[in-house]
Amino acid sequence: MALSTANSFSPSLSTKLTSKSSDSLVRFQSPNSVSLRSSSFVSPSSIELNRSASSVLSASRVASKICASAAPVMDQSVSEASSKVPTIVNVDLGDRSYPIYIGSSLLDQPDLLQRHVHGKRVLIVTNNTVGPIYLDKVTDALTRGNPNVSVESVILPDGEKYKDMDTLMKVFDKAIESRLDRRCTFVALGGGVIGDMCGYAAASYLRGVNFIQIPTTVMAQVDSSVGGKTGINHRLGKNLIGAFYQPECVLIDTDTLNTLPERELASGFAEVIKYGLIRDAEFFEWQEKNIDKLMARDPSALAYAIKRSCENKAEVVSLDEKEGGVRATLNLGHTFGHAIENGLGYGEWLHGEAVAAGTVMAVDMSYRLGWIDDSIVKRVLNILKQAKLPTSPAETMTVETFKSIMAVDKKVADGLLRLILLKGPLGNCVFTGDYDRKALDDTLHAFCKS
Amino acid sequence: MALSTANSFSPSLSTKLTSKSSDSLVRFQSPNSVSLRSSSFVSPSSIELNRSASSVLSASRVASKICASAAPVMDQSVSEASSKVPTIVNVDLGDRSYPIYIGSSLLDQPDLLQRHVHGKRVLIVTNNTVGPIYLDKVTDALTRGNPNVSVESVILPDGEKYKDMDTLMKVFDKAIESRLDRRCTFVALGGGVIGDMCGYAAASYLRGVNFIQIPTTVMAQVDSSVGGKTGINHRLGKNLIGAFYQPECVLIDTDTLNTLPERELASGFAEVIKYGLIRDAEFFEWQEKNIDKLMARDPSALAYAIKRSCENKAEVVSLDEKEGGVRATLNLGHTFGHAIENGLGYGEWLHGEAVAAGTVMAVDMSYRLGWIDDSIVKRVLNILKQAKLPTSPAETMTVETFKSIMAVDKKVADGLLRLILLKGPLGNCVFTGDYDRKALDDTLHAFCKS
Repeated sequence: MALSTANSFSPSLSTKLTSKSSDSLVRFQSPNSVSLRSSSFVSPSSIELNRSASSVLSASRVASKICASAAPVMDQSVSEASSKVPTIVNVDLGDRSYPIYIGSSLLDQPDLLQRHVHGKRVLIVTNNTVGPIYLDKVTDALTRGNPNVSVESVILPDGEKYKDMDTLMKVFDKAIESRLDRRCTFVALGGGVIGDMCGYAAASYLRGVNFIQIPTTVMAQVDSSVGGKTGINHRLGKNLIGAFYQPECVLIDTDTLNTLPERELASGFAEVIKYGLIRDAEFFEWQEKNIDKLMARDPSALAYAIKRSCENKAEVVSLDEKEGGVRATLNLGHTFGHAIENGLGYGEWLHGEAVAAGTVMAVDMSYRLGWIDDSIVKRVLNILKQAKLPTSPAETMTVETFKSIMAVDKKVADGLLRLILLKGPLGNCVFTGDYDRKALDDTLHAFCKS
Repeated sequence: MALSTANSFSPSLSTKLTSKSSDSLVRFQSPNSVSLRSSSFVSPSSIELNRSASSVLSASRVASKICASAAPVMDQSVSEASSKVPTIVNVDLGDRSYPIYIGSSLLDQPDLLQRHVHGKRVLIVTNNTVGPIYLDKVTDALTRGNPNVSVESVILPDGEKYKDMDTLMKVFDKAIESRLDRRCTFVALGGGVIGDMCGYAAASYLRGVNFIQIPTTVMAQVDSSVGGKTGINHRLGKNLIGAFYQPECVLIDTDTLNTLPERELASGFAEVIKYGLIRDAEFFEWQEKNIDKLMARDPSALAYAIKRSCENKAEVVSLDEKEGGVRATLNLGHTFGHAIENGLGYGEWLHGEAVAAGTVMAVDMSYRLGWIDDSIVKRVLNILKQAKLPTSPAETMTVETFKSIMAVDKKVADGLLRLILLKGPLGNCVFTGDYDRKALDDTLHAFCKS
């Protein structure tokens, strides 16, 4: 894995911040506040997300949707999230709203799961890494004191390279052979790949059945299990086939991280860092102070990072479920990252590793456009290195590979590639197709040998 | 194809109509009125649909949602539907409402299609039977006077046996290779198989893109293109994988029926007859008088049958999009029919042929339960025979085959098979799991040699 910084990524880049781009943005007022500039929001090709002093009113409205109270960085919140009483973050989507339960030993509290099971039949979808560790425990949680419920399971091969139609069909085969009917419940037990596949299977089986997410990786807990994006990869691109389909609940037992390999742990932190960069500068500053604790799996620090990430994601998803606008900002670094994952072959790099390198590329491009100060560039590089994440793509990636894969990105609209780029002080970003093509070219050439 | 009536299906069946089941039902008042007994609607295991004198108020509310005026059987309506000015039936689903355009020469009116295209890229999904006849015409309708739109097409093999995941992947392959983005539009050009597959592909491609239905068979025009049910078959059962996904519009050019093979024509009439049986006795009576005209492809008769069928379907779908209740009644004869299609191998019998035989079985069972008068049994047999449709399953179907396939029907709930059965005067049915198992067994044994 290439962990070195790209040669060309240096302070010698001469592009300067324009005062225009930053004058209109001021520091945010509240850790949970967010506003959309309405003038930008109506334009599909460019969306700006910022936290401005003038937006306290609308920000309060949004913050009030979150069940967990606005979370200042303090110990009380941390100890709460790591105790046996789950912290609950609500994803507010009208009649499709659902809770995210976060805490320790939650799989020992059968009621949490059982209250969200529909019907008497459950299908657990897991993989051959997670299944041997947690399948019995989850089966017990589903059936303890609840003898009417019967549980089937399907164990898929582990890894992003199996996130395809052939593997998905194994879920349908099992469900149909088990004669599961519309009143059944699918349970995703595993990381992001399992969650995405189980969710898409639940969306499609008999045209839609109930499903529950039990994410067991940081990546899935802080990002992929929340918000209803499900799907599989196509050989030509990542997540190109799928559905928006919300779970009935997300249950995050932080104890499952005790068995997570270090590389997987770090991969998840790429998404945690993303939330800080795009919309929550105070969270980013907390991460800078606590990255060593996170890497050492300090339970309180992990619980807090997960909670705060879920709050950020829940806010964004509540505002824009189907990614008509602001939700796209959650994809900072992902367009470059997806190209890396696909270009190297799915599973070669973990998703978060590719996102980390992609984030560095997006930050580099933002700097070339004069949209951010070089201090942000340095802070991003610094924290990713501390998290042992890559800060440049693999050396085999070429400019042509990037361009051809990015051309089928879901954020392309009428032929125009829209990107999430940082703009202004830390914690502010834009989703836009309105940028100088030369900056993109320069970034690609700076990070690729050919 | 077995067109003979099953031996055991004779007036010697001794079960009598109970007065209890019919006393509470009275004749309907308006051809477009419908009501749900609220007491039945809340029970998931049994739903009764009737048209009663006491329900005129709610019936009027429903009827007012239909743009096309309530359609008495008269020439004015018929001539309107067969002229170049399209009749419009609206499917009322809030922000997902859409029009069904019905009429002659509609493919010669580019504006009808073009107003519903999103973005600049269109993918037409068709098959190797319909494509050679209509692909150029539809491409012209999409692009005439509209040079910014480019059209791709994918031509699938024709037939129910290709309604599977392998064939579906060809649609995704084409879309991705053509670099279609989220602002594209998929167009289904063909019969029910094409509509179901294209719709499911549109629901899943990039997690959902715009789509338009151009049905070219009676079956698709009167039933499958309307209401958003999309999906594919699994080797173990029909339509087990799919999505509820509504089109942007349905365009029915009745001229496309001029090229339809006779067997396909008759197959579609099975669904037309269904609407009469389950909820529109006056329409059934019209069919009895006009079946010869329909078989002779009289344009006015066809246009009227299509319009009235779409009105019935639009009403039911508007009431219950996701088939929580009343929509299931559209599946009269389908549980038996799906078993026939699957048991014989997909494509051996056409869908409507299997539904016709399945309808006879459902009617037989309804009679055995004492829920309908034998005059209805005779009228059903009579009209199906006049439509040259089968009135019993193929001789190779066994009781065991029926039972094993029906066990994975989507209408099974917590292990209980719910069926649509006729109950009361013509035009009334129930969706229920509350029936004597012996009647089902007796029906299966009456129609199977083993």
